[in-house]
Amino acid sequence: MAKSTQLIDNEVFRAYATYAAIVLVKMMLMSLVTAYFRITRKAFANPEDTASFGKGDSAKKFLRTDADVERVRRGHLNDLENIVPFFGIGLLYALCGPDLSTALLHFRIFAGARIFHTFAYLIPLPQPSRGLSWAVGYAVTISMAYKVLSKALYL
Amino acid sequence: MAKSTQLIDNEVFRAYATYAAIVLVKMMLMSLVTAYFRITRKAFANPEDTASFGKGDSAKKFLRTDADVERVRRGHLNDLENIVPFFGIGLLYALCGPDLSTALLHFRIFAGARIFHTFAYLIPLPQPSRGLSWAVGYAVTISMAYKVLSKALYL
Amino acid sequence: MAKSTQLIDNEVFRAYATYAAIVLVKMMLMSLVTAYFRITRKAFANPEDTASFGKGDSAKKFLRTDADVERVRRGHLNDLENIVPFFGIGLLYALCGPDLSTALLHFRIFAGARIFHTFAYLIPLPQPSRGLSWAVGYAVTISMAYKVLSKALYL
Repeated sequence: MAKSTQLIDNEVFRAYATYAAIVLVKMMLMSLVTAYFRITRKAFANPEDTASFGKGDSAKKFLRTDADVERVRRGHLNDLENIVPFFGIGLLYALCGPDLSTALLHFRIFAGARIFHTFAYLIPLPQPSRGLSWAVGYAVTISMAYKVLSKALYL
Repeated sequence: MAKSTQLIDNEVFRAYATYAAIVLVKMMLMSLVTAYFRITRKAFANPEDTASFGKGDSAKKFLRTDADVERVRRGHLNDLENIVPFFGIGLLYALCGPDLSTALLHFRIFAGARIFHTFAYLIPLPQPSRGLSWAVGYAVTISMAYKVLSKALYL
Repeated sequence: MAKSTQLIDNEVFRAYATYAAIVLVKMMLMSLVTAYFRITRKAFANPEDTASFGKGDSAKKFLRTDADVERVRRGHLNDLENIVPFFGIGLLYALCGPDLSTALLHFRIFAGARIFHTFAYLIPLPQPSRGLSWAVGYAVTISMAYKVLSKALYL
């Protein structure tokens, strides 16, 4: 029987697992930031969420959108649109046997760019801070996709 | 040559594959629920989707948002935000060689919490039903991420 | 020590890696299409994004939604809802050791259906073009999930 633990002994795969876990946890933290802003701004999407703030019409006024909440939600969606492809393409890339140093370079730049992107979105920093950090992460993922397709291509 | 079928002989990986497939299929079912509510509530997002209900202005009135449709869509997005990190971190976790019983505990609690979350969102149940089921799934994923980072850490 | 490069020597896994990378890159291209429409339609979601179009009130008018931008964003979200489950379930499916020809059939139909879906959404083509291409991709993923559950089931 094969032990699935063998893969985790590979250094490239360990590096991938580390950075993939970091950016996925970072993405999950956006849920907590959304919850924080929903509660402090009293801006909810579901009637049942406002029940603790009063009954009937007095609760209805908390069913609203708030600029800060929407900003965090856009950041969260942007994470889904970018971190999920990184996870998928990065996994295939790690299995393609790249050099450890090249792989680490990809993973570190991506993680750094996405963490910076979150701060650029939430503070917010003036453009093009957010745009550039988005583009860096995007380019890293495309670079890994190129490696996967050139190594594994089987149409 | 390595057979990729070896991994699937590992019991932890089989358990992961089972629960990951279940929650991903559950997430996909949200598309059908959305379609059901869009058709029964006659609330569409695209002009071309309303063509079968009439021409011109008589069709335009179906281009609207509906409270039930939006509720399902929020549930679907919440699944994306939580089930996708579970899939990713759970995969890395399964490859880290955890005890079978510990792994099963994580997978079963997560799947149960997310299935309950869907009912809590769609019925809807009074809070904190939905909030708690969300938190349980979130905590399970963080617990697996902790294991991955402590086992595989390679920065 | 296991080499993680072994998996990539398996033909089914290579086929999976190829088509998974193709549809993930296709999904990422939606970000560029969104950016293109946001810039040409001058319709932005963040105040800091409009700064280059003027100061104060003259920039505020670009903080708006645009029908073309929203259409691309719906297409992007639909990709997340469908391509991400394909990636996850397809990975487990590829590890279940299916026949190469059966696996290729699944991957090719899915990739073709989703590429057609994007054109059907963006042009847009009259229904049921988009609905049918969505259903084909959905059915392929469910078929793979059935294979995974019947092969790996461990509850």
